[in-house]
Amino acid sequence: MAIRNKRRAKAAGLPPGILIHVGEKKTAETVINVINYDEPGVRQKEAVDIEECFTYKNKSSITWINIEGIHEIDVIKKLGDYFSLHPLTLEDILHTQQRPKLEDFEDYLFIVLKMPHFDEQNNKIKIEQISLILGPNFVISFNEGKENVFTPVRNRIYSGKGRIRKMRADYLAYALIDVIVDNYFIVLENIGVKIGDIEEELMDDPRNDTLHKIHELKREMMFFRKSVWPLRELVRILTRDDISLINEPTKVFIDDVYDHAIQVIDTIETYRDMLSGMLDLYLSTISNKTNEVMRTLTIVATIFIPLTFIAGLYGMNFENMPETKWRWGYPIIIFVISSIGVSMLFYFKRKKWF
Amino acid sequence: MAIRNKRRAKAAGLPPGILIHVGEKKTAETVINVINYDEPGVRQKEAVDIEECFTYKNKSSITWINIEGIHEIDVIKKLGDYFSLHPLTLEDILHTQQRPKLEDFEDYLFIVLKMPHFDEQNNKIKIEQISLILGPNFVISFNEGKENVFTPVRNRIYSGKGRIRKMRADYLAYALIDVIVDNYFIVLENIGVKIGDIEEELMDDPRNDTLHKIHELKREMMFFRKSVWPLRELVRILTRDDISLINEPTKVFIDDVYDHAIQVIDTIETYRDMLSGMLDLYLSTISNKTNEVMRTLTIVATIFIPLTFIAGLYGMNFENMPETKWRWGYPIIIFVISSIGVSMLFYFKRKKWF
Amino acid sequence: MAIRNKRRAKAAGLPPGILIHVGEKKTAETVINVINYDEPGVRQKEAVDIEECFTYKNKSSITWINIEGIHEIDVIKKLGDYFSLHPLTLEDILHTQQRPKLEDFEDYLFIVLKMPHFDEQNNKIKIEQISLILGPNFVISFNEGKENVFTPVRNRIYSGKGRIRKMRADYLAYALIDVIVDNYFIVLENIGVKIGDIEEELMDDPRNDTLHKIHELKREMMFFRKSVWPLRELVRILTRDDISLINEPTKVFIDDVYDHAIQVIDTIETYRDMLSGMLDLYLSTISNKTNEVMRTLTIVATIFIPLTFIAGLYGMNFENMPETKWRWGYPIIIFVISSIGVSMLFYFKRKKWF
Amino acid sequence: MAIRNKRRAKAAGLPPGILIHVGEKKTAETVINVINYDEPGVRQKEAVDIEECFTYKNKSSITWINIEGIHEIDVIKKLGDYFSLHPLTLEDILHTQQRPKLEDFEDYLFIVLKMPHFDEQNNKIKIEQISLILGPNFVISFNEGKENVFTPVRNRIYSGKGRIRKMRADYLAYALIDVIVDNYFIVLENIGVKIGDIEEELMDDPRNDTLHKIHELKREMMFFRKSVWPLRELVRILTRDDISLINEPTKVFIDDVYDHAIQVIDTIETYRDMLSGMLDLYLSTISNKTNEVMRTLTIVATIFIPLTFIAGLYGMNFENMPETKWRWGYPIIIFVISSIGVSMLFYFKRKKWF
Amino acid sequence: MAIRNKRRAKAAGLPPGILIHVGEKKTAETVINVINYDEPGVRQKEAVDIEECFTYKNKSSITWINIEGIHEIDVIKKLGDYFSLHPLTLEDILHTQQRPKLEDFEDYLFIVLKMPHFDEQNNKIKIEQISLILGPNFVISFNEGKENVFTPVRNRIYSGKGRIRKMRADYLAYALIDVIVDNYFIVLENIGVKIGDIEEELMDDPRNDTLHKIHELKREMMFFRKSVWPLRELVRILTRDDISLINEPTKVFIDDVYDHAIQVIDTIETYRDMLSGMLDLYLSTISNKTNEVMRTLTIVATIFIPLTFIAGLYGMNFENMPETKWRWGYPIIIFVISSIGVSMLFYFKRKKWF
Repeated sequence: MAIRNKRRAKAAGLPPGILIHVGEKKTAETVINVINYDEPGVRQKEAVDIEECFTYKNKSSITWINIEGIHEIDVIKKLGDYFSLHPLTLEDILHTQQRPKLEDFEDYLFIVLKMPHFDEQNNKIKIEQISLILGPNFVISFNEGKENVFTPVRNRIYSGKGRIRKMRADYLAYALIDVIVDNYFIVLENIGVKIGDIEEELMDDPRNDTLHKIHELKREMMFFRKSVWPLRELVRILTRDDISLINEPTKVFIDDVYDHAIQVIDTIETYRDMLSGMLDLYLSTISNKTNEVMRTLTIVATIFIPLTFIAGLYGMNFENMPETKWRWGYPIIIFVISSIGVSMLFYFKRKKWF
Repeated sequence: MAIRNKRRAKAAGLPPGILIHVGEKKTAETVINVINYDEPGVRQKEAVDIEECFTYKNKSSITWINIEGIHEIDVIKKLGDYFSLHPLTLEDILHTQQRPKLEDFEDYLFIVLKMPHFDEQNNKIKIEQISLILGPNFVISFNEGKENVFTPVRNRIYSGKGRIRKMRADYLAYALIDVIVDNYFIVLENIGVKIGDIEEELMDDPRNDTLHKIHELKREMMFFRKSVWPLRELVRILTRDDISLINEPTKVFIDDVYDHAIQVIDTIETYRDMLSGMLDLYLSTISNKTNEVMRTLTIVATIFIPLTFIAGLYGMNFENMPETKWRWGYPIIIFVISSIGVSMLFYFKRKKWF
Repeated sequence: MAIRNKRRAKAAGLPPGILIHVGEKKTAETVINVINYDEPGVRQKEAVDIEECFTYKNKSSITWINIEGIHEIDVIKKLGDYFSLHPLTLEDILHTQQRPKLEDFEDYLFIVLKMPHFDEQNNKIKIEQISLILGPNFVISFNEGKENVFTPVRNRIYSGKGRIRKMRADYLAYALIDVIVDNYFIVLENIGVKIGDIEEELMDDPRNDTLHKIHELKREMMFFRKSVWPLRELVRILTRDDISLINEPTKVFIDDVYDHAIQVIDTIETYRDMLSGMLDLYLSTISNKTNEVMRTLTIVATIFIPLTFIAGLYGMNFENMPETKWRWGYPIIIFVISSIGVSMLFYFKRKKWF
Repeated sequence: MAIRNKRRAKAAGLPPGILIHVGEKKTAETVINVINYDEPGVRQKEAVDIEECFTYKNKSSITWINIEGIHEIDVIKKLGDYFSLHPLTLEDILHTQQRPKLEDFEDYLFIVLKMPHFDEQNNKIKIEQISLILGPNFVISFNEGKENVFTPVRNRIYSGKGRIRKMRADYLAYALIDVIVDNYFIVLENIGVKIGDIEEELMDDPRNDTLHKIHELKREMMFFRKSVWPLRELVRILTRDDISLINEPTKVFIDDVYDHAIQVIDTIETYRDMLSGMLDLYLSTISNKTNEVMRTLTIVATIFIPLTFIAGLYGMNFENMPETKWRWGYPIIIFVISSIGVSMLFYFKRKKWF
Repeated sequence: MAIRNKRRAKAAGLPPGILIHVGEKKTAETVINVINYDEPGVRQKEAVDIEECFTYKNKSSITWINIEGIHEIDVIKKLGDYFSLHPLTLEDILHTQQRPKLEDFEDYLFIVLKMPHFDEQNNKIKIEQISLILGPNFVISFNEGKENVFTPVRNRIYSGKGRIRKMRADYLAYALIDVIVDNYFIVLENIGVKIGDIEEELMDDPRNDTLHKIHELKREMMFFRKSVWPLRELVRILTRDDISLINEPTKVFIDDVYDHAIQVIDTIETYRDMLSGMLDLYLSTISNKTNEVMRTLTIVATIFIPLTFIAGLYGMNFENMPETKWRWGYPIIIFVISSIGVSMLFYFKRKKWF
């Protein structure tokens, strides 16, 4: 978190619309990929040069420009000029610590999304920013890294299956958002497995370690949740408001995404509740265990400390201790000590101390 | 929960409307049952073949198609084609991890509900998904398993008692929803009994075990609650909005279901509060008990440790210990020790330590 | 609570409008009492027979039918038929576990209220259901038991004091609701006294018992609060909405009831906060006390355990222990022991351990 | 609190508008004070007789009737008749346990306010009820006691400074409300000082006593807050709604009062958060201190208990204990004991136990 | 906090619009700085005399009057008269404990903001009040101190870069607000670093000290948050409402500020959650550590206390203790003691006590 604000703070005081890249550089170079399609066919270019993208702009077929790596400011700037994007839009694309949001610039919709993926190596959730520009017949997507999250959509365009090639750019935008939301379920599955593991550990043998794991997960959920919450509102705006760039037939699909978004949030809330419950259970289990241990000590100590005192008494070296000279002194004292011990045991038993 | 998202995750990246069954297969084969009725009479078919259902579609009498087992995708697909259901509706019927929801497709209403029932064997609440399609003169209900939850409605249709045969398909839909909501009360009753048991245990003799029972129940309530909350909103929409498929005379009955839904939620909230209260009480009781035990130890130890020290002193083997040779040495020291002990007792008593 | 849902569950699956009594039978037989009044005079009948009530229906004077005991379904049914009450209204009258609610059936208003009263014998709050039917010129009230809660209203009608005889049936309904809300204050007073008692106990001498008392009261407040919350909304609807059966001059009085309802809720919330505060205080007091006790043990033990060890050392029976033969061995060791003891005392004192 | 409801309960069942005084009698006799002013001058009367007030009613100049002591029902009744106040208004003036509220009776506005003041002697916040009647050209204010809270307003009228003499009765009402809200800041200042004191105590030397102080203050804040919250809503209604008795030029001033009310609430919330934080800090500090003490005991006991056992062993009086006869027995055993002690110390040190 | 209300309390009872300075005097003398600019050029004056400012008022170019130090009431008063500001506006400028707020006086907008900055020396967040007056072609800014927070804006005006010289006064106001909001990120960065430090400390070696640091930070966050929350609402009003002084082209920039404000609040909430999580973790870690220590004591004591008792028994000086005279007495007793010790160890091991 500290890093995050440092970046944002770096840009403090600059006039708006000045383009600087705020965030980690997650890929070596910017890769631009253009797909142009209509119902009859697909044309694709692995464009190295941003200018090549521009040829498709005014065609009636749908153009999808996908950009991986957003640290080359020049590329973004040229694109912005050509598609006449507002300077603040470009600024927001480059600042990778945006909240998910939706802005309607009439000519185009600007959508910022967060895509989580589970980093297997570090066992952590990583969150990337994906920005979408939806124009009348084009979609531009900006990825921070080169996660192949959009591959399923690309394949559907190539294969021509489903309705994607028959519909407009807004459906493409929907398909991209849908694929991102589906990604949330994959991350949630991973978290679910982790929670299951911890739960088992909690039942079997709760350790110090378990506490840290729960806290860790709670915290990751906190960041994850923060990136999902605004998504719901965003999709709801797409659904309900009179956003002219979204056509009627696409709305029912966006309704579906909205349902999924709510389901993601629901599951996150459930996980949070489960983690809180587990934390409570952990703490009470540990405390119960300690109580049990302490009670044993208490009983043992409470019985033996007075007995040891009596034994200590007769260990004193006074010359004139008549009891020590009695014949039955020793057996009597043993009997007295045993009686005291046994009656204390009974007393504690009756008080249900053990 | 982990399983749940695995299933959903399995479908990630697929285009919408591709039908795959997400959920456990809870019954061996799909059983289709058709009841067609109007005021004069009832016609019923235990249809093996889905096509047989279609004959009733355009009649003015009411048709109720009840499908148990939703894993045979073909059946669902044919039905969807014949009744021109939206692909997303079919997808939602097959995905058994939906939240309860209501969708108005103008030609038909699509309602997803959760039906809990108490699994006596595992002592757990199981939740099944029931989907309803309400058309102008038909209702299609999809059950995951073959719980006979709708038997009372079926009997009312056969017997012709009450107003069910006199009213339209919307009243049938209401009757089905009502029977599901009534089911919640049965589950709540079971939970109520469990809570009562734990409460008694808590008063009599709180054990480690009790803690786990409370946590278990709290967690079950959490899932149960999650499946009930959206129900309220759903029924409210049925009541208030201008949903053309619900006729005026049925609305007052749906109002009644709405009251019941609120009562279910109220009871759930009350149970949650009770469980929280019981958890607090458990923890304070245990802590009180430990405190009591500890205080006894403290008093015993605090009194006897110094006394043992004194006794220890006179157990030292120095040759030159004049007190040990005094005639009244022993009695004196016994008196000193007793005095110290008794005054400490008084001191603790005055401080209300016991 | 378990009982409650059992009752409701009993009715599960029945068609709506089938009349069965759900609740405890709180009075031996149904007593019907009719008062008919207008400005000039009052006519009263202790009607045994329900039919006798009907003679007043179409008069322009105001009729108040008060029914104590609602388990005789026949009586309720006849009344319902005569006054053309909706079957669901009758069902709700008989189900005594309703939430407070208001339903406008245009011909009449149906109001369900909860009346608490303090059961002195069991030291518990009991909650009864009172249903009101307000028609154009009649009010029907249904009580579960025969608490004489409405006596003050009856007396005001007889005496003709105040404006009750000059106003319409809506004012009578207001008067009944007002008397019920006033009852809440009486119960609150009882709770206030209880809280005061516990508070005193908490200051003087908190015991195990105190904990249970606080929990008990908290729980009772929970149920009490649950029965009051919907009341506020209910009265608010009476005030603001265009409910044709409530005339303008009565509205200002209902505003007054609304104020009282808010005040009741306010007081309940305050009591809840006070009880939570008391619970916290109890727990911290107990914990403080235990800490104090423990600290004493700790200091005593920490000082004497090492000293006892030293004494123990010189109690060993080695033949060759030169110190034991020194002339000043004993005084020296006593001095060493005292020094250690005293310096530990100073150390603990400086660390503010006591 | 118990007292409060007893009072309210006393009035239970009475018809509305019956005037009885509910509250403590805070002043020996009712003092009536009339000020009549317009821009040119001020006329003032220390009216003993209520009738004398009435002469000013129909003048175009502004009349302010201030009544201290509200237990003389006759006075209130005459006033009510003369100014045609609604019976419920009179009832509310006399019941001193109202929530702050605003009622618009078209002819006049009825405002109930709570005025806190800090009782230096008992070190408690006392809350008095002040009711205001704002008519077209008069303001009537009812105080429970004779706190001179309105003196600054009176002085401003006499001196003619500021705009008070140039404006209408609504401005006078504003000035009175403003002076009451200013009073909240004075009380808040007192609470702030108390919080500061406790905070210092908490840093220096937290005691049992501190806990009670925090709880006490928390509780006082609870009651204080309860009397302020409705104020905000009340002032907001004055500001925004089309209340005909408040003229446009006065609205901007009431906006200002609204800001102050929000600031009071803000500060109260901040104080509550601070108190909660302090309570947490107190509890963790105490618990930390106990932990530290306990850990010392543990280390001392864990080291010396086994050593004492060894010493005890060689204190046994068996005749045949060869070690006791060895020449180096004693030094060896001393060495063994020391080694065990020192290695335990090192072990605990490495485990960071101290 | 105590100070704060003392100040506000000082002004209690005064008529509104009486100007007194409430707050610390943060700068020796009031410095007035005037910048007048339009697209072609910039004119600047380090005005000592307030009258010099007035020459710019009616020019069509934009005038920015920046005032550092607000304790010279005369200056404020003259300015207020010349620009016809409402007396309450002037009062609010002088009272430095306002909540952030926006007031639309039609001729001008009055905006109160809080600017935090991190005081490196005291390691604390300090919060200053900045007031802005936005007129048709002028902006007046009032700073409490002389923090050079506006330098970047000044530089942009001089350099003529960006769009600031091409746009109207509303854009200047936006630029000032933006620079203040950017400042929040800098403070958040500092807090982020602090949180990171504490987190590390928590992982490595949690100490008493850590607890105080967390509490300290939590409290600072509380005040910081309080000054940010109203900001969001304020900026939202600027964005959405029909505020005539904000022109359309500026609105999109204010939207951007709104996003930033939300991001600040989001980060603050995240930090609060993190701090709460850390506090929980601290407490559980400490408690775990104590438990571990206690358990060691318990095991050691529980084993050795009975053994010491046995040794004590044979240290008694009875003459007739036959075991002491047996040949194998000593080895037997050693064996017995060892057996008891070892079996207790095993027992505890099996119970997973260590």
